[in-house]
Amino acid sequence: MISQETIVALASPSGAGAIAVIRISGKNALPIAESIFQSVSGKKISTQNTHTIHLGHIVDEGKTYDQVLLSIFKNPNSYTGEDVIEISCHGSTYIQQQIIQLLLRKGCRMAQAGEFTLRAFLNGKLDLSQAEAVADLISSDNEASHQIAMQQMRGGFSSEIAKLREELLNFASLIELELDFAEEDVEFADRTQFKELLTRIEFVLKRLIDSFAVGNVIKNGIPVAIVGEPNVGKSTLLNALLNEERAIVSDIAGTTRDTIEDELVIDGIGFRFIDTAGIRETKDVVESIGIKKTFEKIEQAQVVLYLFESLKFKVQSSEHIIEIEKIKNQFPLKPLVVVINKIDLLSETEIQNIKEQLETLNVKLQTISAKNNIGIEDLKSQLLSFVNTGALRNNETIVTNTRHYDSLLKALEEIQKVRFGLDGGLSSDLMAIDIKQALYYFGEITGEVTNDELLGNIFANFCIGK
Amino acid sequence: MISQETIVALASPSGAGAIAVIRISGKNALPIAESIFQSVSGKKISTQNTHTIHLGHIVDEGKTYDQVLLSIFKNPNSYTGEDVIEISCHGSTYIQQQIIQLLLRKGCRMAQAGEFTLRAFLNGKLDLSQAEAVADLISSDNEASHQIAMQQMRGGFSSEIAKLREELLNFASLIELELDFAEEDVEFADRTQFKELLTRIEFVLKRLIDSFAVGNVIKNGIPVAIVGEPNVGKSTLLNALLNEERAIVSDIAGTTRDTIEDELVIDGIGFRFIDTAGIRETKDVVESIGIKKTFEKIEQAQVVLYLFESLKFKVQSSEHIIEIEKIKNQFPLKPLVVVINKIDLLSETEIQNIKEQLETLNVKLQTISAKNNIGIEDLKSQLLSFVNTGALRNNETIVTNTRHYDSLLKALEEIQKVRFGLDGGLSSDLMAIDIKQALYYFGEITGEVTNDELLGNIFANFCIGK
Repeated sequence: MISQETIVALASPSGAGAIAVIRISGKNALPIAESIFQSVSGKKISTQNTHTIHLGHIVDEGKTYDQVLLSIFKNPNSYTGEDVIEISCHGSTYIQQQIIQLLLRKGCRMAQAGEFTLRAFLNGKLDLSQAEAVADLISSDNEASHQIAMQQMRGGFSSEIAKLREELLNFASLIELELDFAEEDVEFADRTQFKELLTRIEFVLKRLIDSFAVGNVIKNGIPVAIVGEPNVGKSTLLNALLNEERAIVSDIAGTTRDTIEDELVIDGIGFRFIDTAGIRETKDVVESIGIKKTFEKIEQAQVVLYLFESLKFKVQSSEHIIEIEKIKNQFPLKPLVVVINKIDLLSETEIQNIKEQLETLNVKLQTISAKNNIGIEDLKSQLLSFVNTGALRNNETIVTNTRHYDSLLKALEEIQKVRFGLDGGLSSDLMAIDIKQALYYFGEITGEVTNDELLGNIFANFCIGK
Repeated sequence: MISQETIVALASPSGAGAIAVIRISGKNALPIAESIFQSVSGKKISTQNTHTIHLGHIVDEGKTYDQVLLSIFKNPNSYTGEDVIEISCHGSTYIQQQIIQLLLRKGCRMAQAGEFTLRAFLNGKLDLSQAEAVADLISSDNEASHQIAMQQMRGGFSSEIAKLREELLNFASLIELELDFAEEDVEFADRTQFKELLTRIEFVLKRLIDSFAVGNVIKNGIPVAIVGEPNVGKSTLLNALLNEERAIVSDIAGTTRDTIEDELVIDGIGFRFIDTAGIRETKDVVESIGIKKTFEKIEQAQVVLYLFESLKFKVQSSEHIIEIEKIKNQFPLKPLVVVINKIDLLSETEIQNIKEQLETLNVKLQTISAKNNIGIEDLKSQLLSFVNTGALRNNETIVTNTRHYDSLLKALEEIQKVRFGLDGGLSSDLMAIDIKQALYYFGEITGEVTNDELLGNIFANFCIGK
């Protein structure tokens, strides 16, 4: 199944920089690299040890392309398990292109998305869930998603699954053995122990399945709808929340800030802030559409911030209270924080007065001054309190991958069938079928059971060069 | 002068990719890297050989940041001449930031622009013109500028200068020796040989100075003004010219095309096409401004393409001829190609007729059909014929750097003074002063003579991480 072709791709980010890394993998990686590389030492790279670096020039037909460092990784001690050469060249896009084109002429072909990692999987360097974690790791943009991907890449998740699969497989073979002796009515598999194992598997599967909700939130960020009229201070609030984190980002030259925009990482958890137009009562058609959209956005959000200005509340308290009640009625289970901005413009008595008016609504309340950075830390804590980070803190395995989630659900279903069968005295041969099915779903996660279409889907989401 | 601090920077392009490379250089590069790196083999990196690569994890305070490859370069066998560590990590910007921040906490500081190369220069790994070539190499975006930078980086330019400087130095010391024996009126320096050397130096300097015109053009691209009315087919012509080259660019995933736009590389030489509004006679004020701008653009250009449509010429031949004459009168020395587009719409006789009308103007003529790709190759040859690529083809040293150009001019001036002095029987002590001054300017190029301000200016133009 593994292609014999030697593949090449740019492994470093595209664009210009000080250096760029071009990666070659496959049977002919060494001879192809040797044909275009003249080491300064004069030594042939094929005679060199694995994991060594060599200074030299890329030369072809008398033309010098660049001075480069060439790294050698000999199979099986490489990322892909094949012979791998990495060329670290000067980082102009022109040079990158020239060297890649030269390698294509010398017999490499362009690597497809994720093909290096696919080869690593096919050569047994990684199991499938570890391979998937590589892509997650590269796309991780906050502490939590990074930690989950790291854990998965290091095999935390698959080793747990593999262990259970092993034990289940053990029982499965004992039960299959019973089938051979069906007429003698013997029981090789201890039913009490088997039941204990099934309970344990069910427990683990349920925990992993439950972790998906947290995992998903961590991977994609928690959507937070901000409900409030224009000019109520939404962008000032976002800036106040972003303030600290932005400062960290800008420490590093060359990091782009554009992508953060309304995404914010608090204590390693990503939050996505969704701006809404508010839900003020109106007869205007255009505005009604706005209100409908606001409700749609609230629906998508996991947390709602209802934001208003302290001074306006004084004159419009009833409107605000009606709006808050409307949200509560529509989404009774959705966490809602009422945020009063510009609190510095009110006296203590006035604040107390507002608080009393809102008390009957039974909502969480947070007074802030976005401009003066008052109450921002408390608001962050409020937001964090909605995330069940317990599992994260305890370093438990968290499922973030929809494919794993599906397989876990199916495996659980089969395990429950087995247990019902066991309780109901189902015959060994029928039970064996359900066990096999459960084993199949376990194997799907780690890649012991796989097919081309599945692999195609998984690795198509990778970047080229990985 | 070399800072004792250990510096760190992202060396690969900014943004996300499969992998990223973080570079550390300085006295503490090894101990700092060792404090956060746990190799899979369990070996300490300080005990490992230079130019070796190690798989392991970046770990600090129990937290695993990433699985990485770590490359060791021990001084003096590294780019900077100091101990250098390169960490090849997963390419998410989050991971890049986290690892760089960790290294900053561990005692590195962020490298300034060009600081790695500055250290390489200060440690004698490169001379100054070679260091400058590194920046040129990274910014090179076509064959010619790339080749010149490569040649300069490999010392082609500075070795020529250094050799002449050596010979001149030799004579200088002989002449200085004469000063010690001034009363005895001896001549240690053979005047005939000295004169021969001066002639040789003058010849080389003049050749290098002359090459600057070509070098500058190659480095920055040749500006070509396209004069023609709107809708005359300017963009179709550009597309036809670009066609081939674009196809090559798009072979490589991730290369951006936006920057090319109206820049085109023909046979390795960059051309920058400048669109103009044309110079039709008009009484309209707005249009007169347009004509003024067109003339300004022609002034900046090194080549002018006057483009018109075949069918329109039939009805407006006199206007076109007046316009062409206007350009010729205004810029008599500027190469001008008259390009007739949509040639496929005319008969042979009509084409011949046009050619005859234009013959008296004594301009180069090119008939094309941009849409049908007729005459495009010939037009490319015409454009190339304006570039003196002789030096390039003969692999001669070409000066592209304004700083070098200035120093060469000054050195030539001093050498000529020395020669006049020699011819006029100037005393050895006065001649020695001129020779010293010439030697000074030679030294400026290679960096034997330098100062902080000069270095600051040069390396500020580098990217961070190089």
